[in-house]
Amino acid sequence: MTRLSKKDVLRADQFTRDDIDLILARASEYEAALASKRELDLLRGKILATLFFEPSTRTRLSFEAAMQRLGGRILTVSEAKSTSASKGETLHDTIRTVDGYADAIVIRHPDIGSAEVAARATAKPVLNAGDGAGEHPTQSLLDLYTIQKEQRKADGLTIALVGDLKHGRTVHSLATLLSQFKVSFLFVSPQTLRMPRGIVGRVQERGIAFRETEDLGHALGEADVIYMTRIQRERFADAAEYDRLKDAYVLTRAALVKAKPSITVMHPLPRVNEIAVDVDDLPGAAYFRQSANGVPVRMALLALLLS
Amino acid sequence: MTRLSKKDVLRADQFTRDDIDLILARASEYEAALASKRELDLLRGKILATLFFEPSTRTRLSFEAAMQRLGGRILTVSEAKSTSASKGETLHDTIRTVDGYADAIVIRHPDIGSAEVAARATAKPVLNAGDGAGEHPTQSLLDLYTIQKEQRKADGLTIALVGDLKHGRTVHSLATLLSQFKVSFLFVSPQTLRMPRGIVGRVQERGIAFRETEDLGHALGEADVIYMTRIQRERFADAAEYDRLKDAYVLTRAALVKAKPSITVMHPLPRVNEIAVDVDDLPGAAYFRQSANGVPVRMALLALLLS
Amino acid sequence: MTRLSKKDVLRADQFTRDDIDLILARASEYEAALASKRELDLLRGKILATLFFEPSTRTRLSFEAAMQRLGGRILTVSEAKSTSASKGETLHDTIRTVDGYADAIVIRHPDIGSAEVAARATAKPVLNAGDGAGEHPTQSLLDLYTIQKEQRKADGLTIALVGDLKHGRTVHSLATLLSQFKVSFLFVSPQTLRMPRGIVGRVQERGIAFRETEDLGHALGEADVIYMTRIQRERFADAAEYDRLKDAYVLTRAALVKAKPSITVMHPLPRVNEIAVDVDDLPGAAYFRQSANGVPVRMALLALLLS
Repeated sequence: MTRLSKKDVLRADQFTRDDIDLILARASEYEAALASKRELDLLRGKILATLFFEPSTRTRLSFEAAMQRLGGRILTVSEAKSTSASKGETLHDTIRTVDGYADAIVIRHPDIGSAEVAARATAKPVLNAGDGAGEHPTQSLLDLYTIQKEQRKADGLTIALVGDLKHGRTVHSLATLLSQFKVSFLFVSPQTLRMPRGIVGRVQERGIAFRETEDLGHALGEADVIYMTRIQRERFADAAEYDRLKDAYVLTRAALVKAKPSITVMHPLPRVNEIAVDVDDLPGAAYFRQSANGVPVRMALLALLLS
Repeated sequence: MTRLSKKDVLRADQFTRDDIDLILARASEYEAALASKRELDLLRGKILATLFFEPSTRTRLSFEAAMQRLGGRILTVSEAKSTSASKGETLHDTIRTVDGYADAIVIRHPDIGSAEVAARATAKPVLNAGDGAGEHPTQSLLDLYTIQKEQRKADGLTIALVGDLKHGRTVHSLATLLSQFKVSFLFVSPQTLRMPRGIVGRVQERGIAFRETEDLGHALGEADVIYMTRIQRERFADAAEYDRLKDAYVLTRAALVKAKPSITVMHPLPRVNEIAVDVDDLPGAAYFRQSANGVPVRMALLALLLS
Repeated sequence: MTRLSKKDVLRADQFTRDDIDLILARASEYEAALASKRELDLLRGKILATLFFEPSTRTRLSFEAAMQRLGGRILTVSEAKSTSASKGETLHDTIRTVDGYADAIVIRHPDIGSAEVAARATAKPVLNAGDGAGEHPTQSLLDLYTIQKEQRKADGLTIALVGDLKHGRTVHSLATLLSQFKVSFLFVSPQTLRMPRGIVGRVQERGIAFRETEDLGHALGEADVIYMTRIQRERFADAAEYDRLKDAYVLTRAALVKAKPSITVMHPLPRVNEIAVDVDDLPGAAYFRQSANGVPVRMALLALLLS
């Protein structure tokens, strides 16, 4: 196996277990190459276009770093709304045009399904960097890579997903991807922001154990990995409910005393206050390493799709 | 002949026939090199600055792809208005400054004549990527390149230019450039949006046959190439006149039944609805190929000006 | 000596005399290499991130040109405010994230001290490209480089700093840097916009001669170098005072008749009207050369910090 099963990266559930193993093994090689400052020239002469119809500097820079670390070049559209789209051009036409300039396209767009529209418009690889409330599959891959790297494996782990599980694109895709492994889940959220039944059903089908709770403290004692996400005030119909709950989902150094010493703390970033700053220098605070892992994981994807 | 006759690319009428032949031959070589994935390293160590005082993602990316396909580097200013200009700096000063950073400058600016101001401020090549209602000479060159490639020649063809011929920078420059060939023109537009008499006069001086008509259907039967452009509501003093005419200038698959089988359909893009989507998969629908041709044509220009 | 004394470039007063000599010697080498079109490949495989939380196209392009002239790559954030910061992320977190993508970081930020916050968040080099009313140390270095190049030395010169000396970050940093040399200063400003006493005190401690005056004409007769800066209307409590003074700080060709023939005229750019356009073609009008000197000086800094 030296190829992915699809030409595009659109959804977390598209990956076979072989795909996943191939991507993560390749990412590990590239991480070693970066650490030893070995020059990589694999994508010399190739161009990646990054089309961001909504801003996401973190994701854009991560892709652009990955492409350049492989010797490739980039075309950047950091605010694609100020472009032809504003003149009434369809996404299909925009992508067919960019197809003439680049060898692969990264797209971030506020509308669900837009990455699939883009993928159908071109024979070249399209990578979904977030389509609204839909998917963000490269984030899930780097999350999984981080778990495997920090914990030396994914199988056998108890993984707590914490926060707004109802609206969180990141936790949906990650739960989907992790369902290919022998993990247990703790879904930790307010009652009104529980994991959607569709995702829960998929987890059950795979025979994955899970438990739902509102109590972060309880979950902390059991988890090998705790994945924090943000709860946004605007998701609550009732402001009083938000005020009652918001502090319950802040992870502090004091709270981590009852966690396993080997716990890995993750967050997709940016954080606002979901993780207290005093957690940052604990050995298990992995969120900045997690973010940096985006580079080798995206290098692996680009190399597999383009070379 | 291995050099252009001027240091800059500012206007469609600056090109001698030798210039044109040189550019298009070189573009053809680069297109072949791109198709065979041959590495080009001609502009290694050179930097192109793209200064866009109004957004035009398509044109910017096309230039940036061209420069990078030749091994060169880019400096991008995609929204130049948020720069020194807003602090009161003149265009002359801005260009003299960028002259210190780059080996050539692409400029897009809302004011007619701004590219010529820029060219006088520096000894380095300046390429006009659109100066308001003025010129867009690299667009005309890629249009011409497309005609020659799709039809194997330009001489002898009947070329219909359709839409708002009064305000359309693109059709003005293209008519000017094509006047160096033995073509016939059909100018198809509403009476109030006819081709300016200055352009018509130039065409006549060259001894080029042309006819003006309001009737797209009529033109369709004769044309070898049909070049569609947009008619904007705001160009009409009378809204009723716009409503009466707008559908008459939409090209559909049904309407193309009466065209020559070998017809080439072009459009500078972005399109709104001037060409129905069902035209896209006809063999003569050349507009996305046309857009992609911008890369080898701009590679040719950059290579000729910089190496 | 082949290394700078610090990992970052944050303030003009951080440089030892050895640092300064090393940077300027290296800049001179790179300028010669650029002039002879010699390929430089020193930073091949390295990535520089330019994070601009407020726009400054000139400074950004200068750094990006410098990095690319050395064979390195760039990640650009030209409008960083439309990023994670707007989602409530701290600067510390942003920098720790970018640390995962790039080998060095240039930061421009409206808040004083922000570059130091950034430098503490990463072990990688941080270069301050302006922190509000604080510092802009790379500008001072290129100013000093320009003085030495135009006048063949800095020691022994009489240098007039003209304009709003109270708020001008540029003149504060330059005065600080020049205090390491045996110069004399003329501080030329309205009474209400005099050089801050802190800077004057530092100059005195170093035993540097200086004189303060409101009269530009008087200073012109004595200066070897005249460094013009802008006086902004909004700095005056009293509009009448602004109207009285604004023309007194405009340098004209006529006024330069009484200057030394060897005078060097400088300006950090952009200019509005502080220097009349008819000065531009005098041999001593060095401001566009000064701006271009930013490239070799920043190449020197990047090379010393990264290789």
